[in-house]
Amino acid sequence: MRAVAVAGVGLTKVSEHWEKGLQDLFTEAAHKAFEDAGTKEIDALYVANMGAPILQGQMHLGAMLADALGMRGVPALSVGAASASGGVAFHEGVKAVASGFADCVLVGGVEKMSDGLPEEVYSILAMAEDQEYTAYTGVTNTGLNALIHRSYMETYGATAEEIAMFAVRGHEHAVGSKHSQYPFKVAIDRVLASPMEADPVHMLECAAVGDGAAAMILMPADKAPEGVEVAATSVATGPYYLAGRKDILTFDAVKTAAERAYKVAGVTPDDIDLVEVHDETTITGVISLEDLGFVEKGKGASYVADGCTMREGEVPTNTFGGLKARGHPLGATGLYQVGEVALQLQGRAGPCQVEGAQVGLAESLGGLGSTCAVTILRRG
Amino acid sequence: MRAVAVAGVGLTKVSEHWEKGLQDLFTEAAHKAFEDAGTKEIDALYVANMGAPILQGQMHLGAMLADALGMRGVPALSVGAASASGGVAFHEGVKAVASGFADCVLVGGVEKMSDGLPEEVYSILAMAEDQEYTAYTGVTNTGLNALIHRSYMETYGATAEEIAMFAVRGHEHAVGSKHSQYPFKVAIDRVLASPMEADPVHMLECAAVGDGAAAMILMPADKAPEGVEVAATSVATGPYYLAGRKDILTFDAVKTAAERAYKVAGVTPDDIDLVEVHDETTITGVISLEDLGFVEKGKGASYVADGCTMREGEVPTNTFGGLKARGHPLGATGLYQVGEVALQLQGRAGPCQVEGAQVGLAESLGGLGSTCAVTILRRG
Repeated sequence: MRAVAVAGVGLTKVSEHWEKGLQDLFTEAAHKAFEDAGTKEIDALYVANMGAPILQGQMHLGAMLADALGMRGVPALSVGAASASGGVAFHEGVKAVASGFADCVLVGGVEKMSDGLPEEVYSILAMAEDQEYTAYTGVTNTGLNALIHRSYMETYGATAEEIAMFAVRGHEHAVGSKHSQYPFKVAIDRVLASPMEADPVHMLECAAVGDGAAAMILMPADKAPEGVEVAATSVATGPYYLAGRKDILTFDAVKTAAERAYKVAGVTPDDIDLVEVHDETTITGVISLEDLGFVEKGKGASYVADGCTMREGEVPTNTFGGLKARGHPLGATGLYQVGEVALQLQGRAGPCQVEGAQVGLAESLGGLGSTCAVTILRRG
Repeated sequence: MRAVAVAGVGLTKVSEHWEKGLQDLFTEAAHKAFEDAGTKEIDALYVANMGAPILQGQMHLGAMLADALGMRGVPALSVGAASASGGVAFHEGVKAVASGFADCVLVGGVEKMSDGLPEEVYSILAMAEDQEYTAYTGVTNTGLNALIHRSYMETYGATAEEIAMFAVRGHEHAVGSKHSQYPFKVAIDRVLASPMEADPVHMLECAAVGDGAAAMILMPADKAPEGVEVAATSVATGPYYLAGRKDILTFDAVKTAAERAYKVAGVTPDDIDLVEVHDETTITGVISLEDLGFVEKGKGASYVADGCTMREGEVPTNTFGGLKARGHPLGATGLYQVGEVALQLQGRAGPCQVEGAQVGLAESLGGLGSTCAVTILRRG
């Protein structure tokens, strides 16, 4: 296997892009990535998306976007794993280059959620868990998060305020970020005063609806001296149903994927200088930090509240705002995360820069943590 | 790269499976494949599907089916390229084993179309082309096929009867096949007397709605001495919009994918002993035979009518009935095709056996031939 590098990054601003279609957003991100990498000679295209079959009525994104890019002929396909699609697509793209099947791969994620009716968006989010046994009961995705959230408070004695601080920290980090959806601070009082989405999860603890596209060019590391090395990628699944888990406060898939990735990269959590985690609600962010090994189980919320995840803290987390403040365009999210880690390691994070970052990790979750993709990047 | 073999095949009968869900069908095929391969120790799962987001409201098939198989932890993902999903997923699975990223991969396709309302099924089929510029006009997938069909007749002087014979041949081959949806003969008069689906395409020239799952175990060839070697897999895209093509009677993606696959396998069309092509309607079957290089452009229909594609003919084609008679459960179809080629090369095709077959090819199409996956298998 040869070493692989992220040779170019293209991120569009997460926003409500009423005037742009899937093709517009995707090609915008792709052309930014081409420009950044100094090449557009790709030999494979991996597309990450979740909601297009329902939100746009599109099911053949690979061929459509290859054509939109003027790259007819190139092998192109969609990769899906609910909201982990971006991380999983990155994993597949890295394998294609590492193995020599491809010399230059474009991995891009795109999602347009603003187009959707609210019931369509809720329906898609519910599809991250099982339709027949779970969504059928009427529980929403946020409702499932709420079960975890409440159980966490009761089991570990964490306060509502401590957990909600995850959202506050994200917004603090997003200030100044050009591609983030909500680049402004939100006070804890405002979070706790926002309506209950699903008790005890407040609206301002949830990632919002947004449109965006993120693209990355992958090449052999020796062909991309300015690039950022992919030290490891790993995908794992865990118990699909929340109802079928021994412990709903641990995501087995995260532990499995992280363990594999740390081993491949030859690092431990202590070596990680920044991390992007999948805070679809505040509690998934907290649990992610624990299951990735950054803080002891049950201590994640106070760790965040104490400031340890801030830019100058022990484990700078969600350095452009995370899902809450950078935004969460489902299938694209995992690629925003990886792209942000790459920008950090190259010292291109502007006002969001974590000084001297050498190694970073991105965690992309699908469902209630039933799929996890972990990516570790290292400064070359 | 190491050589890869199909070590096990599991095909469920294509039918209307009202009593079975996606999980039931998929696990049935997977367990058949495990039994056939003599192992269930997989380290990656690739799922091919097209319609589940709309037909079943499911969007996270990888984790769901890994759990259903009792294989929590295994990396699992969906691969999509409209109705080429099966062929493209096979391609990804082969790369995973060839590169050494995985030692044993399960690639499985599943589709349940009977569940869908007719308008849902039509909607999904229309999504193989573009929703915003094509489906928006009201044209159906069959309507697009009809444009090609009519143009072919006018350009090359082929008769309606010659083209319709593609369906008749498929049904002849399906007789005796245990997994085929319609294993009986249909006379040409009946095809031509069936209602027009979209003039000049008759109903009995179109693949029908069906449910099914097909699974394959992939391993390094040296670990599967009884398996069938994967001589080549290749994926290509072509112009996405029918309206944007110089020549709507040629599928560029097929030509590109076939050329690459022949080169990798070191064979020419003359070396191929049987072929499975994507006859979503009769005309796509005819054009596929031409673009794959088996017969000169414009001669495909008379070639079929003359019997050259029959079991004892020059190029035995769709030996278990093809999409028309074996059935076309969208995302699973490409894997049925590859599985059928494997069974033929192992001499396990029963009454459908092509005697002495050594090399076989499967062609999986997405959209109006805008994605093509070509697989060439060789008897080890």
